Amino acid sequence: MADFLTPQNEDFSKWYNEIVQKADLADYSPVRGCMVIKPYGYTLWERIRDELDRRFKATGHVNAYFPLFIPMSFLEKEAEHVEGFSPELAVVTHGGGEELVEPLVVRPTSETIIGHMYAKWVQSYRDLPLLINQWANVVRWELRTRLFLRTTEFLWQEGHTAHATEEEAVEETLRMLSVYTDFAVNEAAIPVLPGRKSESEKFAGAVTSYTIEAMMRDGKALQSGTSHFLGQNFAKAFDIKFLDENNAQQFAWTTSWGVSTRMVGAVVMTHGDDQGLVLPPRLAPVQAVIVPIWRKDEERAAVLEAARALRQRLQDVCRVHLDDRDTFSAGWKFNDWEMRGVPLRLELGPRDVANGTVMAARRDQPGREGKTLLSLADLETTVPALLATIQQAIYQKALAFRDSHIHDVRSYDELKEVVETGFARARWAGSREDEARIKEETKATIRCIPLEQPGGTGTCVFTGREASEVAIFGRAY
Amino acid sequence: MADFLTPQNEDFSKWYNEIVQKADLADYSPVRGCMVIKPYGYTLWERIRDELDRRFKATGHVNAYFPLFIPMSFLEKEAEHVEGFSPELAVVTHGGGEELVEPLVVRPTSETIIGHMYAKWVQSYRDLPLLINQWANVVRWELRTRLFLRTTEFLWQEGHTAHATEEEAVEETLRMLSVYTDFAVNEAAIPVLPGRKSESEKFAGAVTSYTIEAMMRDGKALQSGTSHFLGQNFAKAFDIKFLDENNAQQFAWTTSWGVSTRMVGAVVMTHGDDQGLVLPPRLAPVQAVIVPIWRKDEERAAVLEAARALRQRLQDVCRVHLDDRDTFSAGWKFNDWEMRGVPLRLELGPRDVANGTVMAARRDQPGREGKTLLSLADLETTVPALLATIQQAIYQKALAFRDSHIHDVRSYDELKEVVETGFARARWAGSREDEARIKEETKATIRCIPLEQPGGTGTCVFTGREASEVAIFGRAY
Repeated sequence: MADFLTPQNEDFSKWYNEIVQKADLADYSPVRGCMVIKPYGYTLWERIRDELDRRFKATGHVNAYFPLFIPMSFLEKEAEHVEGFSPELAVVTHGGGEELVEPLVVRPTSETIIGHMYAKWVQSYRDLPLLINQWANVVRWELRTRLFLRTTEFLWQEGHTAHATEEEAVEETLRMLSVYTDFAVNEAAIPVLPGRKSESEKFAGAVTSYTIEAMMRDGKALQSGTSHFLGQNFAKAFDIKFLDENNAQQFAWTTSWGVSTRMVGAVVMTHGDDQGLVLPPRLAPVQAVIVPIWRKDEERAAVLEAARALRQRLQDVCRVHLDDRDTFSAGWKFNDWEMRGVPLRLELGPRDVANGTVMAARRDQPGREGKTLLSLADLETTVPALLATIQQAIYQKALAFRDSHIHDVRSYDELKEVVETGFARARWAGSREDEARIKEETKATIRCIPLEQPGGTGTCVFTGREASEVAIFGRAY
Repeated sequence: MADFLTPQNEDFSKWYNEIVQKADLADYSPVRGCMVIKPYGYTLWERIRDELDRRFKATGHVNAYFPLFIPMSFLEKEAEHVEGFSPELAVVTHGGGEELVEPLVVRPTSETIIGHMYAKWVQSYRDLPLLINQWANVVRWELRTRLFLRTTEFLWQEGHTAHATEEEAVEETLRMLSVYTDFAVNEAAIPVLPGRKSESEKFAGAVTSYTIEAMMRDGKALQSGTSHFLGQNFAKAFDIKFLDENNAQQFAWTTSWGVSTRMVGAVVMTHGDDQGLVLPPRLAPVQAVIVPIWRKDEERAAVLEAARALRQRLQDVCRVHLDDRDTFSAGWKFNDWEMRGVPLRLELGPRDVANGTVMAARRDQPGREGKTLLSLADLETTVPALLATIQQAIYQKALAFRDSHIHDVRSYDELKEVVETGFARARWAGSREDEARIKEETKATIRCIPLEQPGGTGTCVFTGREASEVAIFGRAY
């Protein structure tokens, strides 16, 4: 299997398309731009969903569900919003055999329909804050699509909150950005740069957009989650008003924030190698795979029995799978599970059974140095510990790769060179038009203005003006 | 709050519409026939989803995700299927600002698109069985809609499996029917009648449809889950073929099965009373609510402290909520949580704090007999035990109600009378046309031909022919 993967440094894009299909994460569908998420890929998404959902609930949010369809007129109530989304809409014009009086848009995002409902639900300051999240499918008519990264339909969560004060809404926007950062770092083992979007990259209708930006193994950027402070824009468009403590009418302040199935692509392209996927243990559908090994038929029964006992013992402490297929050789299975990115392989042969041992092989360290002979006696402790070590190691590796591919640049020429292979960090005081020129000339965009700033001032890499902030430039997916 | 609920026996339908909104389960949306599932209702759905999902996984199924859109031509490949669903379709004709060459249907169900993918994935008998489930939204353009019971868009799961033999597929169809029965009985506390659908009630494209039928408190039936044996109909329409062990080409045998957000409506209408919802503890978003009570201000601190300690202790053994709002009286809170159907209310006053007790009030037994004074010392044991008792009691009550509203009838006149208030069980050997006449004359339909049959033969209640089976007749939602 692995033999047929195009090496990453030969053609990263091709490698990605191949591994997503070969590892059974997703498949193309007969519907333009829509993908089928296969069981292995969907289980990975379920892990992402559950870990995000846990964090949303821990920060006081609840889930709800709003309609798939949105009246076209709703989108038109917020001028920037409709301008941003119009080119990407899928439109239902017929229902139940008749032409609709007003066409319905398949939601590209739900600020408008949720804004309408919030206007109905919010009367008094006592009804605030409203802290609601929705897990849903959305549709954006994309011209060029790629599995997980950009598909016409995708799955995501969209949080929508309403607050009595600007301060609270800003705080919520940043809180959710830090929830995303925490998820990326501690579950997906992806180091991310949290920061603010530039004027030309922000969400259609937002006052300020924040993002977590990750670096893929080809040095390109993947926007992996966004959190928007919407000010009173949507509250005014949809009339979300409340009586404050002094009995005065006020417009609410709203936020929205989302992470999508794109995160699966981020995991693939942050950790994968020429042998296939490398999954962080916290998200891996299978954390440890047991591969029984025997040469002679008379060894089979004893090895399989020991393997089953092993599975039984491990299933309470990790997601374990026993590959007891008779139709494939142990070597074939090794390659297969390597390609699927299972963090830990447990090889169990007749000698292991006799000695009370099992050979553990780490996916993130192929070859000898990743192998450890473990005693069967205390596997309930050593296997989870090893998984935790792997989780850390994968993160550190990704962090080292990313940091070695971010360079401080002082000139536009330097910037041009650096974005060929990574991110350029540069002082910035340019305009929307300057951004457009840089994009045209370098294919790079401002990925974010990082929350963490060096302070002081410097010379803008493009305009030469005095700049109080640095920005991260990179080519993006 | 409860004062404003229309009594069930005055107007059950009105009671339903009121309680669904008053208990914050759902709200109407500005999109025709689409509802908003509010956080309390959605949490109930999450509980239903998790308990079903657990059972699907335990029976070897995995989740995946298929596109929302289906090319119109796909539906046309199975003649009965397109005939059944055509009148209910929502159609996307424009995408990205342009008219589509082929219109896309918003999935009303996914046999066709999944059939197409299975044809691609299945080559050999080794690829079978395929046991996949999908959690998704679907759209059916309904003329008359009701919150949860019949909405244009609804949430559901749809299982789709493919097998090498007819026997295996039939077995799977019945296995999933029994999974649904087990869920209904043991989680939702709803007694259901599992059985076969009559010819005129079966799924468009199925060979045989099975159903679980529940009785609501107005004596009407609610179809609460279905499982279909599709024979080779979809395999032939979509070319799902495999090489069998003898290297011969065979068409696969397929099944599909689904439960939807309608189940929320079933829970409401099976257990609710004039005070509001009565939720089975296994599904209740909040299983126990602590209501602190004080008269004098100086009692407040001690009672609240004890209430918080109580919540702390209970949160590992049940879903507990502390209602520490200052803005409402204890009496108001009692009514509010009663309306929301919380199974157990724990009243904690100054005397309880002093005595080390708490008053437990059961939602399913309003009044004195539902009250027990519990010792604070062993609440971690007594509260879960009480919840289990309530779960059982709710089921037994629903079962007794249902059984007292099912009558064996021998004549058509008797049948007409019985279906006014419940189900009629009768010998049946009629045709599709006979069913249509009965429906027209009585508004009742065959809800199912129960799996459990009395044996022997009798006289068909309508045709007078000899009949080997009994059928259940009732008016349905």
